[in-house]
Order: sequence, then C-alpha cells, then structure tokens
Amino acid sequence: MTEETIDTSITAVGSLEVLSQFEVTRLKKAGENGLYDLLRRCVLAILNTGSDIDNTKTMLETFPNFHIDIEQQDRGIRLNLINAPKNAFVDGKMIRSTQEMVFSALRDIVYTQAANKQLGLNLRTSSDITDYVFQFLRNAHLMNPGSDPRIVVCWGGHSINKNEYKYTKDVGHELGLRGLDICTGCGPGAMKGPMKGATISHAKQRIRNGRYIGLTEPGIIAAEAPNPIVNELAILPDIEKRLEAFVRLGHGIIIFPGGVGTAEELLYILGILLHPDNQDIPFPLVLTGPKQAAAYFEQLHAFIGATLGPSAQQKYRIIVDDKEAVAQEMAQGMEQVKAFRKQTKDAFHFNWHLNISEDYQHPFEPNHENMANLRLHKTTPTHELAADLRRAFSGIVAGNVKDTGILAIEQHGPFEIHGDQTIMQPLDALLCAFVEQQRMKLPGTEYQPCYKVVT
Amino acid sequence: MTEETIDTSITAVGSLEVLSQFEVTRLKKAGENGLYDLLRRCVLAILNTGSDIDNTKTMLETFPNFHIDIEQQDRGIRLNLINAPKNAFVDGKMIRSTQEMVFSALRDIVYTQAANKQLGLNLRTSSDITDYVFQFLRNAHLMNPGSDPRIVVCWGGHSINKNEYKYTKDVGHELGLRGLDICTGCGPGAMKGPMKGATISHAKQRIRNGRYIGLTEPGIIAAEAPNPIVNELAILPDIEKRLEAFVRLGHGIIIFPGGVGTAEELLYILGILLHPDNQDIPFPLVLTGPKQAAAYFEQLHAFIGATLGPSAQQKYRIIVDDKEAVAQEMAQGMEQVKAFRKQTKDAFHFNWHLNISEDYQHPFEPNHENMANLRLHKTTPTHELAADLRRAFSGIVAGNVKDTGILAIEQHGPFEIHGDQTIMQPLDALLCAFVEQQRMKLPGTEYQPCYKVVT
Amino acid sequence: MTEETIDTSITAVGSLEVLSQFEVTRLKKAGENGLYDLLRRCVLAILNTGSDIDNTKTMLETFPNFHIDIEQQDRGIRLNLINAPKNAFVDGKMIRSTQEMVFSALRDIVYTQAANKQLGLNLRTSSDITDYVFQFLRNAHLMNPGSDPRIVVCWGGHSINKNEYKYTKDVGHELGLRGLDICTGCGPGAMKGPMKGATISHAKQRIRNGRYIGLTEPGIIAAEAPNPIVNELAILPDIEKRLEAFVRLGHGIIIFPGGVGTAEELLYILGILLHPDNQDIPFPLVLTGPKQAAAYFEQLHAFIGATLGPSAQQKYRIIVDDKEAVAQEMAQGMEQVKAFRKQTKDAFHFNWHLNISEDYQHPFEPNHENMANLRLHKTTPTHELAADLRRAFSGIVAGNVKDTGILAIEQHGPFEIHGDQTIMQPLDALLCAFVEQQRMKLPGTEYQPCYKVVT
Amino acid sequence: MTEETIDTSITAVGSLEVLSQFEVTRLKKAGENGLYDLLRRCVLAILNTGSDIDNTKTMLETFPNFHIDIEQQDRGIRLNLINAPKNAFVDGKMIRSTQEMVFSALRDIVYTQAANKQLGLNLRTSSDITDYVFQFLRNAHLMNPGSDPRIVVCWGGHSINKNEYKYTKDVGHELGLRGLDICTGCGPGAMKGPMKGATISHAKQRIRNGRYIGLTEPGIIAAEAPNPIVNELAILPDIEKRLEAFVRLGHGIIIFPGGVGTAEELLYILGILLHPDNQDIPFPLVLTGPKQAAAYFEQLHAFIGATLGPSAQQKYRIIVDDKEAVAQEMAQGMEQVKAFRKQTKDAFHFNWHLNISEDYQHPFEPNHENMANLRLHKTTPTHELAADLRRAFSGIVAGNVKDTGILAIEQHGPFEIHGDQTIMQPLDALLCAFVEQQRMKLPGTEYQPCYKVVT
Repeated sequence: MTEETIDTSITAVGSLEVLSQFEVTRLKKAGENGLYDLLRRCVLAILNTGSDIDNTKTMLETFPNFHIDIEQQDRGIRLNLINAPKNAFVDGKMIRSTQEMVFSALRDIVYTQAANKQLGLNLRTSSDITDYVFQFLRNAHLMNPGSDPRIVVCWGGHSINKNEYKYTKDVGHELGLRGLDICTGCGPGAMKGPMKGATISHAKQRIRNGRYIGLTEPGIIAAEAPNPIVNELAILPDIEKRLEAFVRLGHGIIIFPGGVGTAEELLYILGILLHPDNQDIPFPLVLTGPKQAAAYFEQLHAFIGATLGPSAQQKYRIIVDDKEAVAQEMAQGMEQVKAFRKQTKDAFHFNWHLNISEDYQHPFEPNHENMANLRLHKTTPTHELAADLRRAFSGIVAGNVKDTGILAIEQHGPFEIHGDQTIMQPLDALLCAFVEQQRMKLPGTEYQPCYKVVT
Repeated sequence: MTEETIDTSITAVGSLEVLSQFEVTRLKKAGENGLYDLLRRCVLAILNTGSDIDNTKTMLETFPNFHIDIEQQDRGIRLNLINAPKNAFVDGKMIRSTQEMVFSALRDIVYTQAANKQLGLNLRTSSDITDYVFQFLRNAHLMNPGSDPRIVVCWGGHSINKNEYKYTKDVGHELGLRGLDICTGCGPGAMKGPMKGATISHAKQRIRNGRYIGLTEPGIIAAEAPNPIVNELAILPDIEKRLEAFVRLGHGIIIFPGGVGTAEELLYILGILLHPDNQDIPFPLVLTGPKQAAAYFEQLHAFIGATLGPSAQQKYRIIVDDKEAVAQEMAQGMEQVKAFRKQTKDAFHFNWHLNISEDYQHPFEPNHENMANLRLHKTTPTHELAADLRRAFSGIVAGNVKDTGILAIEQHGPFEIHGDQTIMQPLDALLCAFVEQQRMKLPGTEYQPCYKVVT
Repeated sequence: MTEETIDTSITAVGSLEVLSQFEVTRLKKAGENGLYDLLRRCVLAILNTGSDIDNTKTMLETFPNFHIDIEQQDRGIRLNLINAPKNAFVDGKMIRSTQEMVFSALRDIVYTQAANKQLGLNLRTSSDITDYVFQFLRNAHLMNPGSDPRIVVCWGGHSINKNEYKYTKDVGHELGLRGLDICTGCGPGAMKGPMKGATISHAKQRIRNGRYIGLTEPGIIAAEAPNPIVNELAILPDIEKRLEAFVRLGHGIIIFPGGVGTAEELLYILGILLHPDNQDIPFPLVLTGPKQAAAYFEQLHAFIGATLGPSAQQKYRIIVDDKEAVAQEMAQGMEQVKAFRKQTKDAFHFNWHLNISEDYQHPFEPNHENMANLRLHKTTPTHELAADLRRAFSGIVAGNVKDTGILAIEQHGPFEIHGDQTIMQPLDALLCAFVEQQRMKLPGTEYQPCYKVVT
Repeated sequence: MTEETIDTSITAVGSLEVLSQFEVTRLKKAGENGLYDLLRRCVLAILNTGSDIDNTKTMLETFPNFHIDIEQQDRGIRLNLINAPKNAFVDGKMIRSTQEMVFSALRDIVYTQAANKQLGLNLRTSSDITDYVFQFLRNAHLMNPGSDPRIVVCWGGHSINKNEYKYTKDVGHELGLRGLDICTGCGPGAMKGPMKGATISHAKQRIRNGRYIGLTEPGIIAAEAPNPIVNELAILPDIEKRLEAFVRLGHGIIIFPGGVGTAEELLYILGILLHPDNQDIPFPLVLTGPKQAAAYFEQLHAFIGATLGPSAQQKYRIIVDDKEAVAQEMAQGMEQVKAFRKQTKDAFHFNWHLNISEDYQHPFEPNHENMANLRLHKTTPTHELAADLRRAFSGIVAGNVKDTGILAIEQHGPFEIHGDQTIMQPLDALLCAFVEQQRMKLPGTEYQPCYKVVT
C-alpha cells in the first residue's frame, strides 16, 4: 500500500536550532551508530499528522520510499524530503508548525545521542535521571523561569468518540479563558481537543504566547502523531522520562476518558502522589468527561478503590460534564502550587520537590518475561503495587501500538499477567469494559487482546 | 424580563485610545447633543455577545439598568460598568477582547461625532464620502500599508444552521492555512465561523498577527453582537459607509448562505462591479456553502439571471461543498489584486480605483414612502436596478432587526414594494424561499413578513 | 552658494502614516492654498541635519533646486527627493531616522491644515487651544497612556561650547541610567547631547523603547534641524503650541546654558508655575551646567530675582557641575508627579491640571509694533510681567534666526523695547552678558543685535 | 586597600538561563572540584567595570570580602552579592546589562565544567576543538542562523589614548550606520569605543537588535572588564578558544592601535590566513587608527614584512584616519563573505571552512621553559613562524596582566626569548616602540618589561 507523496525542501530559518558538522554527519548515517533511522521514523510520524494510521509498523510500510537528505547551508540546515506524506502540506507548501516540529525532532535526537554518549551507564541514581530530564527540557527550551505556574497537562485517549472529543475542546476553551496553557502527549483526540479549545480562547483573551506543549517519545509518535497546534514539541527518549517530564513540567493534570494508556498514566501519577515524601505537595488532579463518560469514571474509581484503597481515591477529584468547574478547579489549584513553590523555594518551571522513586524512572521493557514477573499482590506495599499495575498497563499499550510489542505478540502470543484474585479480578473487569467501550483501538477495527489474565 | 448582571470597572491600558477632557464630557452627556445613549447601546451590544437576543429593542429592554460611568484617570480612561450582562465575563473578569472592543466603540463614536461636526453638510460628493470612509478607517488603525493584499470579506447569515456553520469554519480554516485574514460583519453564524477556523489555522502556520476584522454599525450591532475573536472592530456610522468600508478594505469576498441581508450585500457588490468604470478591476467573488445549500445558491443565481442578466452572473463563481477550492480561488485572486494595484499604483490598503456611485453611498431611509418609490422596472438601467433591488432588501432587513424599522412596521403595517412582474415575481419567489428555509429570523420563532409585494 | 546633492526615493513602509488622495493632492499643490512650500521647507531642514546653517533663509538659498515629488503607490506614499542635501545619507542611502522624520513632517503638516480648516477661527478660548494641542499630540502618537511619568524636557542653547555640550551628554547619560526619557527642541547642542547620553545608558539598562522626543515648529526647524537620534518628532504649528506641548507632555524640565531662546523658555515656565492655580502642582525644574557655566546661572538667577522676585526663584533649583544630583532630583520629582496625578486623577500622559493662561497661548507676532507695546513695568502683575518678558525674548529669537524676523530687521532696523529702568537695566545687562559669552549666534560669526533697549 | 562596597540580590528573570540543582551545588562549592572561586573572580571582574584596576591580583586584593551566595527560588536562581564593588550600581540598583552579564558568567562556567567532564581528554584533534567552540557558542546563544554576515570584530588596546579612543568610536559609528554589528574582547579602550559609536548609529538607523558581542576568558576578564554596552557576553575557557571564536563567529576584523595583545591577535589571524587551505576564503582585515597612529602601523607593517614577508602584508589593508573608508571596506567585505558562504554552502553563523591548525588551538602555557623553546628562526616555515611569534606575544601579555604570569615573573625574573637576529631584531624594535609609546600598560605607571630578548 502506498499513498500520494510530495518532494520538498525546508530550512530551519527562524528556528533556534543550529547543528554542528559533526552532528549533521551523525544524523546522515544509517545503521547501528547512526541516527538516520530514528530521525526518519520521527519525521515521518510528524508529517503523517491527521492520518488514520496509528501504529508505527503500518506507517513505515505505507511510505517505504520516504527519504531525508540533510544539507548544511549558509543560513543553517536544509532538509530535502523525498516521497513525503501529503498531509502536512497546503498547496504544496509545508505547514509552518510541521516544519518547526521536524527541526525539534532533529534537536532532540541529536541531544539524546550526545547525552547518551556522555552519561551512558551513569544514569543509575534517581537524581541522575531527574537531572537528565531537566537538561533535556532545558535544551528543548521548554522552561520559562519568569512565568507563573499555568501548565495544565491533559491526558486521555487518542481515539475517543465525537462527544468526548467535543468535551475536551470545551474544557480547553475554559482553561484558555483563564490564561492556562496546555501540555499533552500531542496526538489526536484528548491530546488535540484541549489545545484547539484553548487556541480559540487565548485569541479571545489576546494571549499571543499561549503554550501548546507536546511531549512524546520515538516509540509512540507514530501512533500519536503531533497535531499541528503543538507549538513546543519534545521527543523524550522513553516513556518513563516522558512521564517524569509531564509531572515535573506540568502544574496540574486533567484526565479525560481513554484506554489503557490513560489508565497507565493515572496509576503513574497516583503512585507518585501516594509516596510519603509527596503527601504535602499540592498537585491538582481532575478526572473528567461528558455525561456519557460517567460510567467510565465510576469503573476507574472503583478499580482504584479496590486495588489501592481510599487514600488513593482522595488524590483526585471526578467532575462529570462541567467544563467550567474543571477549569476553576485547575485555576485555583495553580494558586496553591504557586504559593507552595514560593514558600518552599522550588522553581515554578520544574517540580524539584516531587520524589519520583526509581520504580517509576527505569524503563520497563514489556516482554513476556517481565510481564509475567509483575507482583500484583495485596501484600505488596501500596505505592509499589501502583508501580506494577502501571507496568501491566504499559505492557498492554506496547502490545497494542508499539512496533516491538506488536512483533513480540505476533511471535509468542499474548502476555500472561499473574496476581491475586482480589487485584486481577478488578483489573480484568476494567480491561473488559475498555474493550466493550471500544477504548482499545481506533473505532472500526476489531480489537485482539494482547494479554491474558492468569490468576 | 431582566437577566443576571455584573458590576465592573475597566481601563484602556495597552490600548492606543486616548481621549481629551472635551471628548469625555461629550460621552458622558445624555440627550440630543450628547453621545451617552449611543455609547450605552453599542457597549451593551458588545457585552451581550453570545446571547440569543438579536434585535436592539429586546436587548435594551432586557438590561434597563445598565449604566456606564466614565472617569479620567492617571493611566487613561476608566469605565465603570453597572448592571452589565454577564456573558462577556470569566469568573467575574471581562474577556480581554470584549474590553478592547468597548474602547474601540468609544473611539469610533467620538470620531464620528467630531467628523460630523466638522464635515456635516459637506459630505455631498461621492469623493467626500469615500474620503470620510478612508479617514474613519485610518482613525481606527485598520490600514496596514506594509501588507500584501490578504483580507477576505466573508458575508452570510448570522442565524445559519449547524451544518452551514461548520462549513464556514472549514472554509475559514483553509483561508487561514493560506495566510489570509478574515473580515466580517462581526456577529455570530457566517460572521464568526470563518474567524474561528482561521484562528486555528493561523496558529498552525504560526501567524501571530492574523486579522479578524469586524465592521458593524450602531443600528445593527445588537442583532449581530461582535464575537470575541474579532481583534479589530470598527463601528461605522451607517450601513452605506460600512458596505463601502467592506469593499475598499477587503481584497475579495466570499458569500455564504444567509437571508435578505446577505442578498442585499450580493446586490451591492454586483451593482458596483457592473459599473462600466470597474470592468477591469479584479475582485474575487465566490458564493459557497455545503452540499445542502446547493438549492439556495441555484435560487440566487436564477434570481440574478432573471433580474440583472448573465453579465452579472459572470462576476461571481459558485462553489458548492469544496472548502479547499474556495480558499485556492481566493489565494489566486489575491495575486491578481496585488498585480493590478502595483500596475495601477493603487494602495494595497484601500481600493481607491473602485468607482462607487452615489446611489450606493447615500443612506437609504427604509420608511414606507421610500420603499414604495423604488423603481423595480426592466427599463431601469441595469446597475441602477441593482441599486434599487439592494434598497428593497435593505428595507426588509431594517423591518426585521433594526429598531426604527421594527417600530415603523408596528405602526404602519408592512412595507409595500412595487415593480414589473418580471422582476417582482422572482423577487417574491426568492423571499418565499428564504422564509421557507427559515433564513429570515433566528430558528425557533415564526417569521412575520415585514413587506408586501405589489405588482 | 550650492552644495553637493543627491536624488533619492523613499517610502513610508513600516510607518503608521497613511494619506488619502485628497491629502496627497493638497501636499503637491504650491501657492497660497497648497502645502507644498511648507512641506519642502520642513523636509529640507530635516535633511539638512548636522549642517552649520542655522537660519531658514540661508538654507533655502543653499538648496534652490531641492524638489519633492509625491506619489501614491501600492504600499503607501512614495517621495521622490530631487537635489537633496547629502548630510542625511550613508553611501547613498537615507538614514532611517531621517526617513521616518520626513513622514512625521508630512503627517503633521496634513493634520495642521485639516485642523485649521476645521477649527479655524474657533481657537479662541484657552481650553480650545489646549484641546488642539492634545489632539495634535495624539495624532502624532506621542501619548503612551500606559507609561509612568518619565519624560524629562531638556532646554538649552543649540550652539553651546564643547565643555557645556559634554555636560549635557553626561546629564543625559545619568537620566537614561534611571530609565528617564528625553524630550527637546530636537536641534543640535543642548537638544542633542542629552539624547546621545541617554541612548548609551538606555542600551546599558537594556531599555529598547527609550523615547527621544523632538518638538519643533516650521519657523525654527531650519535653525534647529532635528538630530537623527530623535525617534518621535512633532512639528507644531507655532512656538506657543510647541511650548504648551513641552509642559503638558513633559514631567519635568532641565534648563542648560543657552541664549535668549533659553531665557524665553525659562520665563515661560516660570510665568505658568507662578499662576495661583498652579501653586500646588509638582513640576521638577532644574537649571544646570558645568563649572564654567556657574556665572551664567548667577546672572539668570539675579535677573529673575530683580524682575520677578524671590517667589519665582523658589520654583527652580540650580545645580552646578553635578550630573548625578540633577538626575536624582528628576527621578525623585517624577515620583512626586506620579503621586500627584494619581491623587488628582490627572493623566500621566498629559498635564491637564496645569492652568496656562491665554497670555501664553496666543501667538506673539514679533513685529516692531508689538515689540514696542510690551509693558515691562514694575506695576504689571508678576505673572503678566513674566509673560511680557517672555515675549521680549521671543521677539529677539525671531530677529536672530527666523526668516520673517530677519527680514523685518533688515527692512526697519532693530526692535525697540520700552520699560521701567528697574526692569530694563537687568534685561540689558543679561543680554549684554549673552553677547559677551557668544550665546547669541553660532560661534565664529559676529553678532549684530536685533534690538535696542529704550527706557 | 579596600573600596566602598554594596550588598544586593539579583535574579535571572528575563534571562534564558536556568540551572539544575546539581549545577547550583557545584557553583556553591569552593576548592578544587568546585566552581565557586572561578565564578567569584569572573563576577567580581564584571562588577568592577569602569575601574582603573587592570590586573586580576590587584582586583582580588581590593575586594577581599566580596562573596556570592546562590539560592534556588521560585522564578529561578537568586544571587546574593555581599560587599560588591559599587561601580555597576545606579542609586543602589545594579545596571541591567551587568546583571545579565553575571548570569552569562554562570552559564558559561557551568557549561565549561560540564563539557570538560564530558570531553575531558578527548579534545585532541583539531576538529574536536572546533566542535567544542561551536557547542560553547551555541550554548551561549551567540549564533543567529537567519542573519546575513555582519559581525565586525574590533581588536586593539584597552588603554589607548583619548585621540585613538575617539577614533574607535567614530569608526564604530560608521559601522553601525551601515548596519554592522560589533564584537570585541569586551573591555575598555578599543573594545568599548566601537560599541559606543555603533550604539548611537544603530539608534539613528532604528536597529533595535544591534549586537555588541563580548568574548573574554577567565584569565583576562579582570584586566578587560566587560563594558556595560556588551549585550552578548561569553567567557571562553582559554585564549586559544576565544581567538578561534573571534575568527569563526566574526565576518571581518578591524585592528586598532594597541600593545602586545593586539600584535598577538594580528599574528594569530595572519598565521591562519596564510595557511594554504585558506587562500581563497575572503576575510576583510583592516588596520586603522587616527593620523597620530600612522607611525605605529608603519612599524607593525615593517615588522610583518621583515618576519613573515610581503605575502602576509597582502592579507590586510592599512587605512589611516578615514573612518568612512574603513566602514565601507568592511561593508563591501561582508558582501564577498556572503557570496562565498552561499557558494560553498558554509554557514553564515560559523566559519567552518577556515582551517585553523592545531598550533593555534592548543593552549600555550606561558612559562619560562615554553617561552625559551620558541623557534623564532628564518628556516621555520612561514605559517609556523607566525604561530611562534604569536606565542611570544602571548607570553608577554601573560607576564603583564594575567595573575599566573605576573607571579611567574615575580618568582623567576623576566622570560628569555631566543631566535635569529633577523627576527629578534625587528621584534625587539617593535617591543621598544610599544614601551616608548606607552602601549604596554595603563598610562601613568612605568612599565617593567617582563621579557628579555636573547639572540
């Protein structure tokens, strides 16, 4: 299957990104020591915005002849893109935001490689990893030390229904009316809606420097291609650093309806907020959706209650079908965050105080062995249990949309997940509900579960 | 009937508008020589944005206790607004664009009054009126001499259906992707959709100075309250100067489905473009709507053919359900406008070359006598016939939504319109179709015709 | 005598100024009803910046073939300048600030003419004149309602010595370090030095929007050609409106050494501040110069004491050779001005409270009759005496550098000034001292007195 | 000896610099592994701007109690400065540019340390060093990929006479009139004059983003404290990287009169331009000064002719007392640089093509042994001879103003320099002339030679 393509040539004029000859050489080099394959994949995903393809394998197969040629020129780097997907072009000219995102990809890939070489094996301690995330975000110009706290992270599914999508737009509109910025995983659905709504309301409030931050990773970018409203894009090296970036950069989180990925994110933030060191840190967390999503949140709420208990349930507020209340809750939460950071002398631009334990920082490789080894037992301490539940969902996301995961499932059959009946039963119930509500895949294709719950 | 209200106080900080003591005094003064009543009415309409009220009388009756208190202060003018409608506030704070529009109203009312005093009876010749329009727009900072032609005027109904509204957004999105700006009558419906769409696509193209120009008039502003995306507002003194402002400031026009107001606008621009002096002036003019509006445009097209003939039909292009084609037509048209202005040394920011005859410049008072005197005969020269047809529709608009018009109809019954059967028959057919398609009023209320066709 | 000239063509791109066809026509028209001669004279003076010529007659004779051709074009107005003086060009390209000032001249000349036509004979009352000054400055974009008071007016001679010039630069540097802006008569000498000093210190303080305001008038612009640091220029119609603009726009005044023009300015501001209505209005006023100018200020101080008395002397502070003290005095004065305006609800951008009586507002035509009629008597009420002393100096300035004045003296001999011995004696002493110190003309030419003191 | 001091506290608001907790910890740590001492010395030098002290030792002794306390805060880093020199304060408030420069120092010190740790022993090859310089400048935001070539490097003495200083200002003024930017070693004298001149002319040309780049190094910053006009400061780790930064970042060089440091710089650029690989690279190089400096340039010219021969003399142009000709030469040179970079696809923002051999890249430690080992022989290949002559001058600069050099001389007596009579004789003659012309030290102190020429 091939699609219509276009050849073009773009420069980084106006961008802050400047590359050295050495960096250009590395980017051009394919194979093990080179960065070309990674660059090609990320750029292809960026160009493929708006398409229905939501997994990497299909995307790579659809554009087999896509090729990037990098040239050093008088005013900076020039990229010649051969056989590029047409989506990101208007009358043959690339959309400006797409152009900027392509150069953000270059920047982050170069940085990741340089940092890996430098830090390599040394990213052992928790504080080393946090420092890495900080330096990554600084290099991506994502920290504005002069600004008040106003970044609202929006999590939720990339393939939600029309009604839910409309609601995410409405919430975004209310957030923007209150001068808040949006940060998401930068794909479609719940990751696009709030940005779109906020764009309109920022225009009404004459906010010209509204931020629409997209944080993604090479393994997921194809499934959640950055929507063109994103005006600050960062491609972090893996899901754990990406999640850490969300919670240290953002000042509050809204969770919209979604599938396992969204559940993973909820478990991630709950696990962190449940850590004894983080008890006093204000962190606005709202679960919200339209009336029709009420059942979904009841299920999630019950699942949290059954597995992590009522103290976990107190860390968030569920608001159904009240976009204004959501935005007001966030706006008030920002004031608390501001007061707390002032008092504790923590930076507005990076949440240093939050203790994120190593459990949440080390990459979890979602293979059959690791999935089988998760300790989903009642005897596991609560915040460690949250960590393993998070990993369980992470593995399922990988099996659904990441290419290595898909491959592993194709070869070895579904993952087996073990655990206590009291945990496994609610987990299975939740996953079944997701399947029923078609929250596991883009609507229209039938979902093939990539896991088996074994008690 | 009264509504919930709010008291607030706003300053013009950041605005370019500075008033003299003398001007402040005049604004505060009610009664015949004062400007207070006019100011109050315009500000009320601006604050009432988003409401369902679409006529002035109802609006004034709904907020009988609304009051403006004007104070000179250290950093400029302060307005205390008492019992203001709540629509334009977020958590008790006025939306920034609304605040800016209130001061635009001040500016234009002061200017109109000063200019009236100065020019008063002298606005006799056609070139005097054009000069007035120019000076008005200059005073409102609406002319950017450095910019290429890219202002697309969008006309169409303020109470169109969902499907048509969605289409205007889509067209606006495509226009914005091509870097074009939007100028409308600044109310809801077809006046808001294109701005909303362009706001999103300007964000995607990183255009931070996108223009969303609203041109209105005191008599219509209540019916078509400026939507808050408008970032440049001008309140011209009457419909004729407003229409002249549209065609001299804009570089092309798109006409979406609408009612009699839209038909009036189409006749206005056709009458001008049919003038022999204007034959060679490029002026992109597109009639467009979604699939469901195809019949509407067929009717209009037939009406134009029957009354003004095929040469009039050649002045526009009808495009059904193809948002990209509309935007491409406009983008190409801009290139022709640019080339023509360069060649003829005409300004990009004001279409001096266009000959607008006095017929189109003098206010038409839509009373029973004037309506009865229209010469809708086949023997009338074509472009004069266009002028009188325009006046007929203008009277009907007044009878529908303007307060003086509504009052006249209440007192003396419907207007009577005379003319040749060959003209009156298509006219009546068109008006009936409008009624049938519910294009005469906001949906939900039954339309009472304010006119009677008498042959 | 002719000088090397250059032909060029400039456009108003980037400027706010847009002209109508009608305005262009008027500007092109020579003779009584046209504006061409006035425009030509002002533009010639602007282009002649940096030259040694300091009177209009010589300037006009030096460039007899200078010609301006005005064209309307696609992006605005184009001016073709034929046989222009070379001073304002670098490698054949006009200095940007000069280019901007030429278009400021256009703007002000067009405005003056339009306002004259409109207001003509009506500028009778004091408040009408003040309103005119306000509207003129608004039209010239000189009022920034959002800014704190920080405009320091610097008055002083245009042909001071090196040592005094250096001192004005140093004071300007200290003012700029404190974030203050500069407003002067915009010529060389004491009008340029403070701007130059402030430019450097604004750069050090990273103030990118530092204001260097030049206020001039058609009759004096040739003698005091705007220096190119001026970034906001206004050409007011006559000396009285220009002086009113200085004191209503500025928030404090520094007077450097100068000649009769400077003395005229000191008498002007003293006369106003002595008015009973203005007793409580804070108005920082400092007379300052380097060590060598100490004697000059002693003479002035003595003259004020002898004629207007000690209450007048208390309105200013003399600071000799202490640039920091001058700037600190001004910075503190600004705080008082700010507090007063806040308290009295007066605008920061225009000093409405100051009562300027008609004596100071009506043009004084410095002919032989008017000069002879001045009432320089001890019995004249103090603030009226100040007004007539000011007129005496005004006449002398005219006789020195303005073309009508020079002509009158050439035809009828020196002006005769009458008055009481107790006033005339100090006046004559002061004028003699000015002549002695070569403060009456550019150094190098011998001064011919244009007046005769008759007791 | 102690001086009046001030305590203050500054934040990096508005700056791009954000530090991690780890970086802050390192900056606070004194001793071998910490950065505190280096930071303290650089900040002290920056604050000491405008002082007469021109060596590090004296400066450190003058402010023994100066102390910096670093705090992480909500909006970024706060620095508490205790017992700071008063020079950089106005009414107790630090000059904004000084404040910015303090944070530039932080940034560069942190970067240098991080890079050293990372790259440490690996900076062996020439291309590694060039890559380091590139990355350093990129981290300091000194590369603007969108801009045309217009950076003029100005070299020359920091203690030149009044007349020469005035000339550097005049040349800077002419450069700025032509839109050129200035890059210098950022101290007083010839490093300040051109920036001051260009500040005025950039204001005249309405250039608001004029660049005044200062490149310095920890060892020299005390002797050449950054003047406050510098708006982009970088503190490179050593003289070799600083010189490489000058020639790769700058697009042309002007050499004003100076002492041995200036001679060193001339030899550096000549040695590079003489390299066979660089023959075709356009590089505008002008030696210029006022009339009185004519002899100085004759001596330099003769010295170059006698040691490196006529081909070296052809690499530069000497222009005496013609500021306009200098600026025109540079402006034309920029055009050639632009054309060449376009043609060869080299970046405007970094001169990758220039081959700088390792001889010029490795730090030269100016101790007695290294100075004694220089090969100043006629048989040495020309461009290597240039390198050793450069080192000879470098050692003398160290002996004059750098603290390690001064200490070495105090302990072991003057350096001994060996070489052929045909080279040593012109060298000694040149150095004697420098001493005679008081070009070796600040005027007023008697110069003690730190070297002995031994043939």
